[in-house]
Amino acid sequence: MTKTRKSTAGRRPGESGTREAILEAATDAFLDRGYDGATMRGIARAAEVDPALVVHFFGSKDGLFKAVLETGANPLRQIAKFVDAPDDELGARLIRHYLDAWESPETSARMSAVLRAAATSEAAAEVLKSFVTDALLTPLTGRVNAGEAPLRASLCGAHLAGISLTRYILKTEPIASLDAERLAAVVGPCLQHYLAGELGAGPAT
Amino acid sequence: MTKTRKSTAGRRPGESGTREAILEAATDAFLDRGYDGATMRGIARAAEVDPALVVHFFGSKDGLFKAVLETGANPLRQIAKFVDAPDDELGARLIRHYLDAWESPETSARMSAVLRAAATSEAAAEVLKSFVTDALLTPLTGRVNAGEAPLRASLCGAHLAGISLTRYILKTEPIASLDAERLAAVVGPCLQHYLAGELGAGPAT
Repeated sequence: MTKTRKSTAGRRPGESGTREAILEAATDAFLDRGYDGATMRGIARAAEVDPALVVHFFGSKDGLFKAVLETGANPLRQIAKFVDAPDDELGARLIRHYLDAWESPETSARMSAVLRAAATSEAAAEVLKSFVTDALLTPLTGRVNAGEAPLRASLCGAHLAGISLTRYILKTEPIASLDAERLAAVVGPCLQHYLAGELGAGPAT
Repeated sequence: MTKTRKSTAGRRPGESGTREAILEAATDAFLDRGYDGATMRGIARAAEVDPALVVHFFGSKDGLFKAVLETGANPLRQIAKFVDAPDDELGARLIRHYLDAWESPETSARMSAVLRAAATSEAAAEVLKSFVTDALLTPLTGRVNAGEAPLRASLCGAHLAGISLTRYILKTEPIASLDAERLAAVVGPCLQHYLAGELGAGPAT
């Protein structure tokens, strides 16, 4: 968090940087105190702005949470680019775009805050679920040419969520420190199998 | 939670049911308020016991958290049974034991509380990580006959964690309601690939 900000007295609602300062303070609050523990008033204090400005920009805590998720997860929307891949490279492209997105510093901090909040609040979990459906599962489902597209997309989503939890949240080795290229090479074939393989049939060992 | 318990005046430390009542109250507290929000005093009040009894049985909040994890996750220890499977059935057995363990009512409630607490507290995350290493990753690693055993075990752990998050915590469809047999049939081949396949090579589609 930027701690160099001074008085908020002369700040106008549209002032550049104010919105970003509130988002930074909100990210910290959701990360430290979870969804239920974070308050609009506390976030305003940490961002050194009037609470009315927080309401002006974001409406409610729910609106603020959505904004943290949207800005933090914005790189995750780039994942939709994977749909241009040839059929036999879908899995490899998906995991590479996903790791790239998570490894941008902005995404990593904000998505960790979002995942932690979602683990402790039904409301936050609902917001996260609708984002994941919109940004990841729907493009994935649309790209699947095989039957059972929703199940295939959901299997990929579950596997990717497990990778994020292991690598970025719990930081369990050896996955936490594994070279991203190597991780992509190892996980890609399983995602490819889920997207285009014969579900329930054994992949070649 | 059992709400029929009466006065605690005549309860002796070893009385049957007291320890279990404290564990139930602690599970609710970790689920509702996270690790940081749960207090020994609040848990004692909910369990209708003297706070000294909670200390007597569990020592500290950390000890109480470990006990919730150990009793809730006890069925997960059964997963180690998968090691008796023939080499070509490891993945199928692993996912079946894992889903069986999660779908016992006791495990499901307590593990949800543990996962939520771990998502919000570094201390709780450390306890969970050492349990997962001990109960799941170490037996898995020991059972792998191929090279890179720690990475293989960790890939299985990450995939299983993602399935739990999707099916039991976020409850995202279609995985949330999918028949357990079908889910096992679909996920088993990917676990088998991670345990015994050629990492980085494409499974047959």
